[in-house]
Amino acid sequence: METYTSIPEELKLTVLERIQPTEPEREKLLAIQKELASQVKLAAEKLGVPGVLVKMVGSAARGTWLSGTHDIDVFISFPEETSRKELETLGMAVAKEVAKHAEHAEDRHAEHPYLNIIYKGFDVDLVPCFRVASASHIKSAVDRTPFHNDFVKPRIKGHEDEVLLLKQFMRGGGVYGSELKTQGFSGYLTELLVISYGSFKNTIYAACSWKPGEKIDIMQHGEIDHEEPLVVIDPTDPRRNVAAALSLDKFCMFIDHCREFLKSPELSFFFPASLLPLEDSEILEKLESRKSTQLAVVFKTPDVVEDVLFPQLYKMEQAVAALLKEYDFTVIKTGVWSGNTETAVMMELISGTLPNVKKHIGPPVWVKVHAEKFKEKYQAEDGVFGGYIENGKYVFEIRRKYPTAKGLLEDRLRSCSLGKQVHQSINESFEIIEDAGICRLKDPDFRVFLRKWI
Amino acid sequence: METYTSIPEELKLTVLERIQPTEPEREKLLAIQKELASQVKLAAEKLGVPGVLVKMVGSAARGTWLSGTHDIDVFISFPEETSRKELETLGMAVAKEVAKHAEHAEDRHAEHPYLNIIYKGFDVDLVPCFRVASASHIKSAVDRTPFHNDFVKPRIKGHEDEVLLLKQFMRGGGVYGSELKTQGFSGYLTELLVISYGSFKNTIYAACSWKPGEKIDIMQHGEIDHEEPLVVIDPTDPRRNVAAALSLDKFCMFIDHCREFLKSPELSFFFPASLLPLEDSEILEKLESRKSTQLAVVFKTPDVVEDVLFPQLYKMEQAVAALLKEYDFTVIKTGVWSGNTETAVMMELISGTLPNVKKHIGPPVWVKVHAEKFKEKYQAEDGVFGGYIENGKYVFEIRRKYPTAKGLLEDRLRSCSLGKQVHQSINESFEIIEDAGICRLKDPDFRVFLRKWI
Repeated sequence: METYTSIPEELKLTVLERIQPTEPEREKLLAIQKELASQVKLAAEKLGVPGVLVKMVGSAARGTWLSGTHDIDVFISFPEETSRKELETLGMAVAKEVAKHAEHAEDRHAEHPYLNIIYKGFDVDLVPCFRVASASHIKSAVDRTPFHNDFVKPRIKGHEDEVLLLKQFMRGGGVYGSELKTQGFSGYLTELLVISYGSFKNTIYAACSWKPGEKIDIMQHGEIDHEEPLVVIDPTDPRRNVAAALSLDKFCMFIDHCREFLKSPELSFFFPASLLPLEDSEILEKLESRKSTQLAVVFKTPDVVEDVLFPQLYKMEQAVAALLKEYDFTVIKTGVWSGNTETAVMMELISGTLPNVKKHIGPPVWVKVHAEKFKEKYQAEDGVFGGYIENGKYVFEIRRKYPTAKGLLEDRLRSCSLGKQVHQSINESFEIIEDAGICRLKDPDFRVFLRKWI
Repeated sequence: METYTSIPEELKLTVLERIQPTEPEREKLLAIQKELASQVKLAAEKLGVPGVLVKMVGSAARGTWLSGTHDIDVFISFPEETSRKELETLGMAVAKEVAKHAEHAEDRHAEHPYLNIIYKGFDVDLVPCFRVASASHIKSAVDRTPFHNDFVKPRIKGHEDEVLLLKQFMRGGGVYGSELKTQGFSGYLTELLVISYGSFKNTIYAACSWKPGEKIDIMQHGEIDHEEPLVVIDPTDPRRNVAAALSLDKFCMFIDHCREFLKSPELSFFFPASLLPLEDSEILEKLESRKSTQLAVVFKTPDVVEDVLFPQLYKMEQAVAALLKEYDFTVIKTGVWSGNTETAVMMELISGTLPNVKKHIGPPVWVKVHAEKFKEKYQAEDGVFGGYIENGKYVFEIRRKYPTAKGLLEDRLRSCSLGKQVHQSINESFEIIEDAGICRLKDPDFRVFLRKWI
């Protein structure tokens, strides 16, 4: 059995003091929720839409929200027999009626449209959904959420603080949030972990020994196999893995965060010191110290939500690395940063230049037809340095097409397989900046990213 | 069936004119052989050594020697019951007595000692051997040679020109000679090929379709399996592969030489134009064009025969390449040149420098004990740039110990596994020269080597 330092109660209290919503905060949230519920009902009546019910879901409704966050999820539920088209048009009509009282409103799309509004300083999602009989018979992905609420709320009662601690701890480790940018732990997943393990502490202890394939099935009703590193069967849907969005690296980062925390349980694991943007002089110093090549593919940030943008950026990151490798450049690491105006896909290389000469190994001499074809082809080619036999194979020293990574990307990036909006932006224009050239990017958020990068 | 250009008779005649010994040459050789035989007998009598017989072996004795070569092999044979010690002392005594009439004499060692003398301008080996009953019962490797002579001489009669053509053709292709430097075809092997295939032409045709594992067993008596690319069972010893010394690359170079020759049968395949030494300006031009890194490990040529030196140089070539690879340098090719005073092991690299930062990938995070040990070790190490998790594994960016290939070799070459004499010479001193620095080596023979190299 492992022996770990226990987690001091005092530390937990210190954290809770900073993240528990205050009484006035709680009261305000409740009041806003009530207001929004009646606004939705009024709007439905006003528009003559029948059968509408309002449901408050999410952490705000379950008492597991962190102080300072102002997110409210209002589900506008329609009878199951409503058509998808009706749900969308009537649902959005009701939402837009409510939005008349909001400071700001914005149409958004996930599987189907919803309205995001700023209402009295709160960030509110107004989400039309179907009122289905069970979570396994949902007509739309969002229909599941009310069932999650029903499952969690009674079970988490009295353990809300444990959820708050775990959420804040995950935030501190950079693994909280199931958006496609983060690929970490969702709020619902965090709640299920506390329900399953019983407490913050037990979750931390357990996670230290997690391995990919770790399975948690509270209702013991899982029906299918899942490939993801962590499998937490949805208590409301036996076919769904709640942790499906969690990447292997975020899974591992959480394990690591738990182990380190138990070695010396400190406040910084919940509230890490914020990083300062890197100054130009620091960048130059670090480049000189590393002596590798830094490459940034910089382009205008496409005007789409992060859940659309980031999968495209990650795809581009892979494509650029594969292109570089295909042309013999050695990639040390890759990264992605996206700001309001500019986006950068970062590559660190062993070297951004390669010699002109490239060793091209052909078939064994005795594989006659292939070997002779190979030899004829390269013997006749322009700029061939020479040929010889090595380990029984024909080898030609040919002229490298792209001796610089910059030249390669400038010439071939557009023909990479890229996502739609990223491809559009890259097609408009992009720039390859190298080494000290990255000082051109002044966005403080990029400079914070750089501090972790180099 | 392949269709090849036939080999013009005229071409063969032109070649033969240049390589067939002239009548005066022949007569002189015969006279010298006779003289040497009687010298040996006289010496044995003078020293009172009984039971000595003289045997002329090798190409000179079989009429398969190329004009202009002046090698004579004189075997001084002792009764089988002679002890090895007696053979050596008495054999060498007789040889040294003969050497009194020579211009120059030099003790040499293969499996046992022999004497190399220059006698009236001829290069003569005086080799003591045992007179055994059959080649499969030899007491020393050289005892086989007289049996080779007995096998070849009657069978090659009338086909000597075919052997001459094949030998000269192999010379032209750089594959003639079974010394450990060349690892090509021996004279005896060439004769067996002509005996087996019937002619020069048929050998060329056959070799075009050779594959590793090609087997020729004239006596159909082979007893064991051989791993070498070409297996020619010794007609005088069913357990021996006459082609054992032939390397895979020389085997392939011969195949290639045959194919190219049949595409356009020209005199140059027998007598290639000799290469001019590379001038300094040409070296600099070629370096600029290739933009790779040239490294030469230069040291005093050890004072040993080539058959001892070259295996050590080839071993060193492998060891240096392995060392460079171990420390992340990418080797394009390696080579060896050895002159009278200096020897150079050559390496062409993608780059002679690497960044200071080195990516060190550890175990997966979930392999707990190993992963934690790895993390602790590298976290505490000096000069670590940073750490992160990638593909579920801990990765540390550590400081590279050897960012230059020159520095690596200067520090670690002495601890490589090297042969005895090379190790001694390296231990005394060596120099790593790089790129334009190789202009320091002025030996014309090195400059010819360089012309093929870059």
